[in-house]
Amino acid sequence: MTTSTDQNQHIEKLRGLIQDIGCGMLTSVDEDGSLHSRPMDKTSEIESDGTLWFFTNASTHKVFEIEHRQQVNVSFTSSDKQRYVSISGIAELVRDRNKMQELWKPKLKAWFPQGLDESDLALLKIKINRADYWDSQLKFQQQTINL
Amino acid sequence: MTTSTDQNQHIEKLRGLIQDIGCGMLTSVDEDGSLHSRPMDKTSEIESDGTLWFFTNASTHKVFEIEHRQQVNVSFTSSDKQRYVSISGIAELVRDRNKMQELWKPKLKAWFPQGLDESDLALLKIKINRADYWDSQLKFQQQTINL
Repeated sequence: MTTSTDQNQHIEKLRGLIQDIGCGMLTSVDEDGSLHSRPMDKTSEIESDGTLWFFTNASTHKVFEIEHRQQVNVSFTSSDKQRYVSISGIAELVRDRNKMQELWKPKLKAWFPQGLDESDLALLKIKINRADYWDSQLKFQQQTINL
Repeated sequence: MTTSTDQNQHIEKLRGLIQDIGCGMLTSVDEDGSLHSRPMDKTSEIESDGTLWFFTNASTHKVFEIEHRQQVNVSFTSSDKQRYVSISGIAELVRDRNKMQELWKPKLKAWFPQGLDESDLALLKIKINRADYWDSQLKFQQQTINL
Protein backbone atom coordinates (compact mmCIF):
# COMPACT_ATOMS: atom_id res chain seq x y z
CA MET A 1 0.00 0.00 0.00
CA THR A 2 1.26 3.47 -0.88
CA THR A 3 0.51 5.96 1.92
CA SER A 4 0.18 9.68 1.19
CA THR A 5 3.54 10.26 2.92
CA ASP A 6 5.17 7.72 0.58
CA GLN A 7 3.43 9.39 -2.35
CA ASN A 8 4.77 12.82 -1.32
CA GLN A 9 8.29 11.44 -0.96
CA HIS A 10 8.10 9.70 -4.33
CA ILE A 11 6.93 12.86 -6.08
CA GLU A 12 9.58 14.95 -4.34
CA LYS A 13 12.24 12.48 -5.49
CA LEU A 14 10.94 12.51 -9.06
CA ARG A 15 10.79 16.33 -9.14
CA GLY A 16 14.42 16.45 -8.08
CA LEU A 17 15.45 14.00 -10.81
CA ILE A 18 14.03 16.13 -13.64
CA GLN A 19 14.27 19.63 -12.20
CA ASP A 20 17.35 20.58 -14.25
CA ILE A 21 16.07 19.01 -17.48
CA GLY A 22 14.02 21.45 -19.53
CA CYS A 23 12.69 19.20 -22.24
CA GLY A 24 11.37 15.63 -22.30
CA MET A 25 10.66 13.27 -25.20
CA LEU A 26 7.01 12.16 -25.28
CA THR A 27 6.43 8.77 -26.95
CA SER A 28 3.02 7.65 -28.13
CA VAL A 29 1.69 4.85 -30.32
CA ASP A 30 0.18 5.41 -33.77
CA GLU A 31 -2.78 3.53 -35.28
CA ASP A 32 -0.42 1.13 -37.08
CA GLY A 33 1.41 0.37 -33.83
CA SER A 34 4.53 2.40 -34.64
CA LEU A 35 6.04 4.47 -31.83
CA HIS A 36 6.82 8.18 -32.29
CA SER A 37 8.44 10.64 -29.94
CA ARG A 38 8.78 14.41 -29.94
CA PRO A 39 10.29 17.03 -27.61
CA MET A 40 8.02 18.64 -25.04
CA ASP A 41 9.11 21.65 -23.00
CA LYS A 42 8.49 21.17 -19.30
CA THR A 43 6.11 23.86 -18.08
CA SER A 44 6.06 23.19 -14.36
CA GLU A 45 7.06 20.87 -11.58
CA ILE A 46 5.18 17.61 -11.15
CA GLU A 47 2.04 18.40 -9.15
CA SER A 48 1.39 16.76 -5.78
CA ASP A 49 -1.12 14.30 -7.30
CA GLY A 50 1.52 13.07 -9.78
CA THR A 51 0.43 15.13 -12.78
CA LEU A 52 2.76 16.61 -15.40
CA TRP A 53 1.54 19.25 -17.90
CA PHE A 54 2.72 20.19 -21.38
CA PHE A 55 1.47 22.69 -23.93
CA THR A 56 0.47 21.37 -27.35
CA ASN A 57 -1.39 22.34 -30.46
CA ALA A 58 -4.68 20.45 -30.34
CA SER A 59 -4.83 19.55 -34.04
CA THR A 60 -1.56 17.61 -34.22
CA HIS A 61 -0.93 13.99 -35.01
CA LYS A 62 0.33 13.26 -31.49
CA VAL A 63 -3.04 14.37 -30.08
CA PHE A 64 -4.75 12.07 -32.58
CA GLU A 65 -2.49 9.24 -31.36
CA ILE A 66 -3.17 10.00 -27.71
CA GLU A 67 -6.93 10.24 -28.17
CA HIS A 68 -6.86 6.74 -29.63
CA ARG A 69 -4.41 5.31 -27.12
CA GLN A 70 -3.73 7.16 -23.89
CA GLN A 71 -0.70 5.28 -22.61
CA VAL A 72 2.50 7.29 -23.14
CA ASN A 73 6.08 7.59 -21.99
CA VAL A 74 8.05 10.75 -21.26
CA SER A 75 11.82 10.38 -21.04
CA PHE A 76 14.20 12.96 -19.59
CA THR A 77 17.93 12.85 -20.30
CA SER A 78 20.77 14.76 -18.65
CA SER A 79 23.97 13.77 -20.39
CA ASP A 80 25.99 16.10 -18.08
CA LYS A 81 24.78 14.25 -14.99
CA GLN A 82 24.48 10.91 -16.78
CA ARG A 83 20.91 10.66 -15.57
CA TYR A 84 18.06 9.03 -17.49
CA VAL A 85 14.42 9.08 -16.38
CA SER A 86 11.47 7.17 -17.88
CA ILE A 87 7.95 8.23 -16.89
CA SER A 88 5.00 5.99 -17.80
CA GLY A 89 1.55 7.54 -17.66
CA ILE A 90 -1.85 8.27 -19.12
CA ALA A 91 -2.29 11.33 -21.35
CA GLU A 92 -5.38 13.47 -21.85
CA LEU A 93 -6.03 16.63 -23.88
CA VAL A 94 -7.31 19.47 -21.69
CA ARG A 95 -8.59 22.86 -22.91
CA ASP A 96 -8.54 24.92 -19.75
CA ARG A 97 -7.83 28.62 -20.28
CA ASN A 98 -7.12 29.29 -16.59
CA LYS A 99 -4.65 26.41 -16.37
CA MET A 100 -2.91 27.61 -19.54
CA GLN A 101 -2.51 31.08 -18.04
CA GLU A 102 -1.15 29.57 -14.83
CA LEU A 103 1.42 27.40 -16.67
CA TRP A 104 2.53 29.69 -19.53
CA LYS A 105 6.24 30.56 -19.64
CA PRO A 106 7.97 32.95 -22.09
CA LYS A 107 10.42 30.20 -23.23
CA LEU A 108 7.44 28.40 -24.81
CA LYS A 109 7.38 31.05 -27.56
CA ALA A 110 10.05 28.98 -29.34
CA TRP A 111 7.30 26.41 -29.99
CA PHE A 112 4.18 28.61 -29.90
CA PRO A 113 5.15 32.00 -31.36
CA GLN A 114 1.69 33.54 -30.76
CA GLY A 115 1.80 32.52 -27.11
CA LEU A 116 -1.54 32.19 -25.35
CA ASP A 117 -3.21 33.74 -28.42
CA GLU A 118 -2.54 30.60 -30.54
CA SER A 119 -6.06 29.55 -31.47
CA ASP A 120 -5.18 25.84 -31.39
CA LEU A 121 -3.35 25.91 -28.04
CA ALA A 122 -4.24 23.26 -25.46
CA LEU A 123 -2.66 21.24 -22.67
CA LEU A 124 -1.60 17.63 -22.37
CA LYS A 125 -2.15 16.30 -18.87
CA ILE A 126 -0.04 13.25 -18.02
CA LYS A 127 -1.06 11.24 -14.96
CA ILE A 128 2.11 9.45 -13.87
CA ASN A 129 1.84 5.77 -12.90
CA ARG A 130 5.48 4.80 -12.69
CA ALA A 131 8.96 6.16 -13.16
CA ASP A 132 12.29 4.40 -13.65
CA TYR A 133 15.67 6.08 -13.45
CA TRP A 134 19.35 5.39 -13.89
CA ASP A 135 22.35 7.51 -13.04
CA SER A 136 26.08 7.19 -12.78
CA GLN A 137 26.01 7.68 -8.97
CA LEU A 138 23.93 4.51 -8.66
CA LYS A 139 26.12 2.71 -11.19
CA PHE A 140 23.24 2.68 -13.67
CA GLN A 141 21.22 0.20 -11.62
CA GLN A 142 17.54 0.67 -12.48
CA GLN A 143 15.49 2.34 -9.72
CA THR A 144 11.67 2.31 -9.83
CA ILE A 145 9.10 4.65 -8.31
CA ASN A 146 5.45 3.55 -8.36
CA LEU A 147 2.87 6.29 -7.80
CA MET B 1 9.92 5.87 -54.48
CA THR B 2 13.11 5.94 -52.43
CA THR B 3 16.20 5.35 -54.59
CA SER B 4 19.40 3.97 -53.12
CA THR B 5 21.02 7.40 -53.52
CA ASP B 6 18.19 8.95 -51.50
CA GLN B 7 18.58 6.18 -48.93
CA ASN B 8 22.32 6.86 -48.62
CA GLN B 9 21.69 10.57 -48.20
CA HIS B 10 18.98 9.98 -45.60
CA ILE B 11 21.20 7.67 -43.58
CA GLU B 12 24.13 10.11 -43.81
CA LYS B 13 21.86 12.90 -42.54
CA LEU B 14 20.59 10.76 -39.68
CA ARG B 15 24.12 9.70 -38.70
CA GLY B 16 25.12 13.34 -38.50
CA LEU B 17 22.15 14.19 -36.29
CA ILE B 18 23.03 11.64 -33.60
CA GLN B 19 26.80 11.40 -33.97
CA ASP B 20 27.54 13.54 -30.88
CA ILE B 21 24.86 11.91 -28.72
CA GLY B 22 26.20 8.88 -26.88
CA CYS B 23 23.04 7.48 -25.36
CA GLY B 24 19.46 7.10 -26.61
CA MET B 25 16.24 6.24 -24.78
CA LEU B 26 14.60 3.07 -26.12
CA THR B 27 10.83 2.93 -25.62
CA SER B 28 8.88 -0.32 -25.88
CA VAL B 29 5.36 -1.44 -24.99
CA ASP B 30 4.56 -3.84 -22.15
CA GLU B 31 1.87 -6.55 -22.16
CA ASP B 32 -0.59 -4.23 -20.37
CA GLY B 33 0.01 -1.52 -23.00
CA SER B 34 2.15 0.72 -20.76
CA LEU B 35 5.21 2.34 -22.35
CA HIS B 36 8.65 2.08 -20.75
CA SER B 37 11.94 3.60 -21.79
CA ARG B 38 15.55 3.02 -20.74
CA PRO B 39 18.96 4.39 -21.73
CA MET B 40 20.91 2.52 -24.40
CA ASP B 41 24.54 3.35 -25.17
CA LYS B 42 25.13 3.82 -28.87
CA THR B 43 27.67 1.27 -30.03
CA SER B 44 28.20 2.31 -33.63
CA GLU B 45 27.03 4.50 -36.47
CA ILE B 46 23.82 3.62 -38.26
CA GLU B 47 24.70 0.99 -40.87
CA SER B 48 24.09 1.61 -44.57
CA ASP B 49 20.93 -0.53 -44.57
CA GLY B 50 19.41 1.62 -41.79
CA THR B 51 20.25 -0.66 -38.86
CA LEU B 52 21.19 0.51 -35.37
CA TRP B 53 22.70 -1.87 -32.79
CA PHE B 54 22.68 -1.88 -28.99
CA PHE B 55 24.04 -4.29 -26.41
CA THR B 56 21.58 -5.76 -23.92
CA ASN B 57 21.24 -8.53 -21.40
CA ALA B 58 18.99 -11.12 -23.01
CA SER B 59 16.96 -11.97 -19.88
CA THR B 60 15.60 -8.50 -19.20
CA HIS B 61 12.06 -7.25 -19.19
CA LYS B 62 12.66 -5.01 -22.21
CA VAL B 63 13.61 -8.08 -24.27
CA PHE B 64 10.41 -9.76 -23.07
CA GLU B 65 8.50 -6.66 -24.21
CA ILE B 66 10.24 -6.56 -27.58
CA GLU B 67 9.74 -10.25 -28.27
CA HIS B 68 6.00 -9.72 -27.78
CA ARG B 69 5.82 -6.45 -29.69
CA GLN B 70 8.68 -5.46 -31.98
CA GLN B 71 7.79 -1.83 -32.69
CA VAL B 72 10.00 0.54 -30.69
CA ASN B 73 11.20 4.12 -30.57
CA VAL B 74 14.70 5.38 -29.82
CA SER B 75 15.01 9.07 -28.96
CA PHE B 76 18.25 11.05 -28.91
CA THR B 77 18.49 14.41 -27.12
CA SER B 78 21.25 17.01 -27.27
CA SER B 79 20.28 19.83 -24.93
CA ASP B 80 23.49 21.74 -25.83
CA LYS B 81 22.52 21.84 -29.49
CA GLN B 82 18.78 21.90 -28.79
CA ARG B 83 18.38 18.92 -31.08
CA TYR B 84 15.81 16.14 -30.61
CA VAL B 85 15.63 13.00 -32.75
CA SER B 86 12.92 10.32 -32.78
CA ILE B 87 13.67 7.01 -34.49
CA SER B 88 10.84 4.54 -35.15
CA GLY B 89 11.79 0.98 -35.95
CA ILE B 90 11.48 -2.75 -35.49
CA ALA B 91 13.59 -4.46 -32.80
CA GLU B 92 14.98 -7.97 -32.76
CA LEU B 93 17.21 -9.86 -30.31
CA VAL B 94 20.36 -11.19 -31.99
CA ARG B 95 22.95 -13.50 -30.42
CA ASP B 96 25.88 -13.14 -32.77
CA ARG B 97 29.30 -13.48 -31.15
CA ASN B 98 31.18 -12.04 -34.14
CA LYS B 99 28.93 -9.00 -34.30
CA MET B 100 29.35 -8.45 -30.56
CA GLN B 101 33.14 -8.52 -30.94
CA GLU B 102 32.92 -6.08 -33.82
CA LEU B 103 30.71 -3.63 -31.89
CA TRP B 104 32.14 -3.84 -28.35
CA LYS B 105 33.51 -0.61 -26.89
CA PRO B 106 35.23 -0.17 -23.48
CA LYS B 107 32.69 2.51 -22.38
CA LEU B 108 30.04 -0.25 -22.31
CA LYS B 109 31.65 -1.64 -19.14
CA ALA B 110 29.57 0.93 -17.21
CA TRP B 111 26.54 -1.20 -18.10
CA PHE B 112 28.14 -4.64 -18.60
CA PRO B 113 31.02 -4.91 -16.10
CA GLN B 114 32.11 -8.34 -17.35
CA GLY B 115 32.34 -7.10 -20.93
CA LEU B 116 32.05 -9.72 -23.64
CA ASP B 117 32.28 -12.40 -20.94
CA GLU B 118 28.78 -11.57 -19.60
CA SER B 119 26.95 -14.86 -20.11
CA ASP B 120 23.64 -13.14 -20.83
CA LEU B 121 25.04 -10.60 -23.32
CA ALA B 122 23.22 -10.17 -26.63
CA LEU B 123 22.43 -7.50 -29.21
CA LEU B 124 19.31 -5.56 -30.08
CA LYS B 125 19.06 -4.88 -33.78
CA ILE B 126 16.80 -1.96 -34.68
CA LYS B 127 15.69 -1.67 -38.31
CA ILE B 128 14.85 2.01 -38.76
CA ASN B 129 11.66 2.88 -40.67
CA ARG B 130 11.38 6.57 -39.99
CA ALA B 131 13.05 9.39 -38.13
CA ASP B 132 11.77 12.81 -37.10
CA TYR B 133 13.92 15.63 -35.81
CA TRP B 134 13.71 19.13 -34.47
CA ASP B 135 16.41 21.66 -33.76
CA SER B 136 16.78 25.30 -32.91
CA GLN B 137 18.42 26.09 -36.30
CA LEU B 138 15.22 24.97 -38.02
CA LYS B 139 13.08 26.81 -35.47
CA PHE B 140 11.85 23.49 -34.13
CA GLN B 141 9.84 22.70 -37.25
CA GLN B 142 9.45 18.91 -37.48
CA GLN B 143 11.55 17.29 -40.23
CA THR B 144 10.89 13.68 -41.30
CA ILE B 145 13.17 11.09 -42.92
CA ASN B 146 11.54 7.92 -44.29
CA LEU B 147 13.89 4.99 -44.90
